[in-house]
Amino acid sequence: MSHFNYLDGSKLKNPVLVAGFPGIANIGKLAVEYLIHRLEATKFAELYSEYFPEWTIQEGDTLKTLKMDFFRARPPALKHDLLLVTSDAQAATPLGQYVLTGETLDFAKKHGTETVITMAAYVLSQNEPVNKRVMGAASHSELNELLEKHGVSLINGGMIVGMNGLLPALAASRGMRGFCLLGTTKGGLLDVEASEAILRVLQAILGFEVDLQELHQHALYFPKLKPILKSSREFEDELSYIR
Amino acid sequence: MSHFNYLDGSKLKNPVLVAGFPGIANIGKLAVEYLIHRLEATKFAELYSEYFPEWTIQEGDTLKTLKMDFFRARPPALKHDLLLVTSDAQAATPLGQYVLTGETLDFAKKHGTETVITMAAYVLSQNEPVNKRVMGAASHSELNELLEKHGVSLINGGMIVGMNGLLPALAASRGMRGFCLLGTTKGGLLDVEASEAILRVLQAILGFEVDLQELHQHALYFPKLKPILKSSREFEDELSYIR
Amino acid sequence: MSHFNYLDGSKLKNPVLVAGFPGIANIGKLAVEYLIHRLEATKFAELYSEYFPEWTIQEGDTLKTLKMDFFRARPPALKHDLLLVTSDAQAATPLGQYVLTGETLDFAKKHGTETVITMAAYVLSQNEPVNKRVMGAASHSELNELLEKHGVSLINGGMIVGMNGLLPALAASRGMRGFCLLGTTKGGLLDVEASEAILRVLQAILGFEVDLQELHQHALYFPKLKPILKSSREFEDELSYIR
Amino acid sequence: MSHFNYLDGSKLKNPVLVAGFPGIANIGKLAVEYLIHRLEATKFAELYSEYFPEWTIQEGDTLKTLKMDFFRARPPALKHDLLLVTSDAQAATPLGQYVLTGETLDFAKKHGTETVITMAAYVLSQNEPVNKRVMGAASHSELNELLEKHGVSLINGGMIVGMNGLLPALAASRGMRGFCLLGTTKGGLLDVEASEAILRVLQAILGFEVDLQELHQHALYFPKLKPILKSSREFEDELSYIR
Repeated sequence: MSHFNYLDGSKLKNPVLVAGFPGIANIGKLAVEYLIHRLEATKFAELYSEYFPEWTIQEGDTLKTLKMDFFRARPPALKHDLLLVTSDAQAATPLGQYVLTGETLDFAKKHGTETVITMAAYVLSQNEPVNKRVMGAASHSELNELLEKHGVSLINGGMIVGMNGLLPALAASRGMRGFCLLGTTKGGLLDVEASEAILRVLQAILGFEVDLQELHQHALYFPKLKPILKSSREFEDELSYIR
Repeated sequence: MSHFNYLDGSKLKNPVLVAGFPGIANIGKLAVEYLIHRLEATKFAELYSEYFPEWTIQEGDTLKTLKMDFFRARPPALKHDLLLVTSDAQAATPLGQYVLTGETLDFAKKHGTETVITMAAYVLSQNEPVNKRVMGAASHSELNELLEKHGVSLINGGMIVGMNGLLPALAASRGMRGFCLLGTTKGGLLDVEASEAILRVLQAILGFEVDLQELHQHALYFPKLKPILKSSREFEDELSYIR
Repeated sequence: MSHFNYLDGSKLKNPVLVAGFPGIANIGKLAVEYLIHRLEATKFAELYSEYFPEWTIQEGDTLKTLKMDFFRARPPALKHDLLLVTSDAQAATPLGQYVLTGETLDFAKKHGTETVITMAAYVLSQNEPVNKRVMGAASHSELNELLEKHGVSLINGGMIVGMNGLLPALAASRGMRGFCLLGTTKGGLLDVEASEAILRVLQAILGFEVDLQELHQHALYFPKLKPILKSSREFEDELSYIR
Repeated sequence: MSHFNYLDGSKLKNPVLVAGFPGIANIGKLAVEYLIHRLEATKFAELYSEYFPEWTIQEGDTLKTLKMDFFRARPPALKHDLLLVTSDAQAATPLGQYVLTGETLDFAKKHGTETVITMAAYVLSQNEPVNKRVMGAASHSELNELLEKHGVSLINGGMIVGMNGLLPALAASRGMRGFCLLGTTKGGLLDVEASEAILRVLQAILGFEVDLQELHQHALYFPKLKPILKSSREFEDELSYIR
């Protein structure tokens, strides 16, 4: 029931998938959107799916259902492409998270992807000190070494909920590999420092560099949406009223 | 698992779909029901679906499961039909909202529909002043101009939950177009002024007119249903009792 | 994913389906179980389904998953059979309620059923006086007359949640007809008077009689089950702990 | 959407399935993990499924989605194998519990299993005295006798939620048989005494013995995981914020 909408017929060159979805402090989403902005990435494809929440939002000035967006970019220093991925929301159900992850991985593999990277949050408890740094976890042991070499602390136990963990974990079952970079945070709507920290690590690992000076300024325009309509189902539950 | 029940074999002429579902202040549902009443619309078809809540209600004096109702009408000033759509409830799950929207759009397209309009609520926060007016959003930029020309303020960000947004948004992916008219409201069971405001805009856009004098009186008979039986599932959860 | 387990190869004669499921005050379930007891009904079939809750209970001294039970009986005064139906629980989801209802109706129709009757509760608000009586609703207008002739007050608006309403309502779409008898109640675990009231009406309508003297005594043995194990999912949610 | 990953091509000899899943006081899971440890069991297969929660965890030092693990072992005293089963979590939905149970039973039957045993908790209310002992229930009456002969008190009414009950109950419908051993507990994260009690009964019934001295020490290393990332869906619900 999902479908991909291709916007660009160009062939990708060994693209590394780099994803950041809406979530706690929007660490991953801000990071990916900044890369899209700075690298002047081109929209490559959209994934529409009935597994998203039943919401409609404005994109530009028109109404759209929720989707996942795939952008391609080639930083000057690299000989391969980046496939930058973000979405308007995560799937509405646990099953939906599995389905969207599988569709994303199949799509990426078809276009030559071998490595899948997600960026997200590592939430600290209220009393834990924020030593700004990046935590990580990977699908293969050799990637752990790579992460540690770049100053990433490997997580030790714990679980990751949703596509940020499913993408690298299920990459392995498709013959790919993956890891996630988790910026430590106390939460909130945005944590720009955490986004900056994982971007620095990402660039060091992949071997490219974009100017991060504008990140704080870019964050000011991070879209902030308020819901217009509550679910009428909830509404009916409250009022015990149906027609 | 859904099925359409046709009640009328007549052919529709380029029908514009105008929908209003149960929801906050029942703004859209009251508006559509008033049009059905004033235009002496004819029931054209019913859509039954297992995606509705598992409720039964009385229609006339007999028990019916929940359904969507499609009426056809031709206001004297128009050379095309209206396909007036309402329902007893919205779907029970997010996936169900997508499914019912898709089935409604396929049905409408099959009968010649090119434009899909939904009417619903735009909820103001408690302290926001109620400047009675109509907000809107559309599937195509050129429709935004049309809306603004008729005094509709375009929403700027925010999201629409459920079929009121999905219908116009997914119309585009089927080669149709659509928009929604949202009456500002503080909520409650009914907001007759909001219904009236969107009806005035709808008529101006489509080029027909019905007498709105009776709308307040008609609202007095808006059906008010109380639940008889709570879900026995909830009941069992409370009592930890199963047989 | 559901399947019927036949326990008796005998042919039913125009059976009237009479169902009572677990629910508020177990009015319908007690009524059906008393009929099964007094009429010495024979177990005819069982319906197992993955749409039931994921619970296991003891039947006799062995573990069973939840199921629906179909018994056949022939009261001396009748020239047709009764198909007495009850279950251990209702379905776990709204969709499941539709599915189990459809499977039950298809099964009944296959065995010659033309009339489907459900017995359940009509919950009064705390301040409403309990005038012990029976409310009703039907799939066809002519059945309303029959109900009223036997002292049943027709409900006027309101909705019925779950299979008690879906069975008679969806009977019509399969060429059958049906009604429900709702005993007024304030709730609680059992309301024996309400069960008795609907049994009196049922017998008058169908034209048979069983001794209701033992009903109160029978109710003392109505099974009362306590849960042993809470869902481990809930448990994990509470403790944020997974392995 | 589930799939088995075989890690060992060896043929099992009439394996008795012994399962313990995460749950209250992790009584069953600890018991199975201790058997795996003491019997130096070999990983035989893994079951991955989209019906698990959408979580990722570390196994060793790499990211994995949730799964069910099947180990084979042959205690010296036995002439048949044990198929030791545990999982990282139970299924995310009631339907998922049925599906994973069915897949596990089909897998076990294919490998020659005739008997299915689950180990779990029997939760006492706060005021009930903890007479450390083992409760049980079975798919067939003759198994009840076996259980009682080994000091197991049969449960009398009540229900079992999830795979601990579904596995033995649905074994019967596949021509197998099964029972569950429930250690009485007040709850908590671990109840080592309860695990020990069911292991003593299990060994007596199956006719093998492992040293239980190390059980308490082994329990100290029972994995304790904290979630890193809350569901971003919940997060969005709280903040009414989507992109």
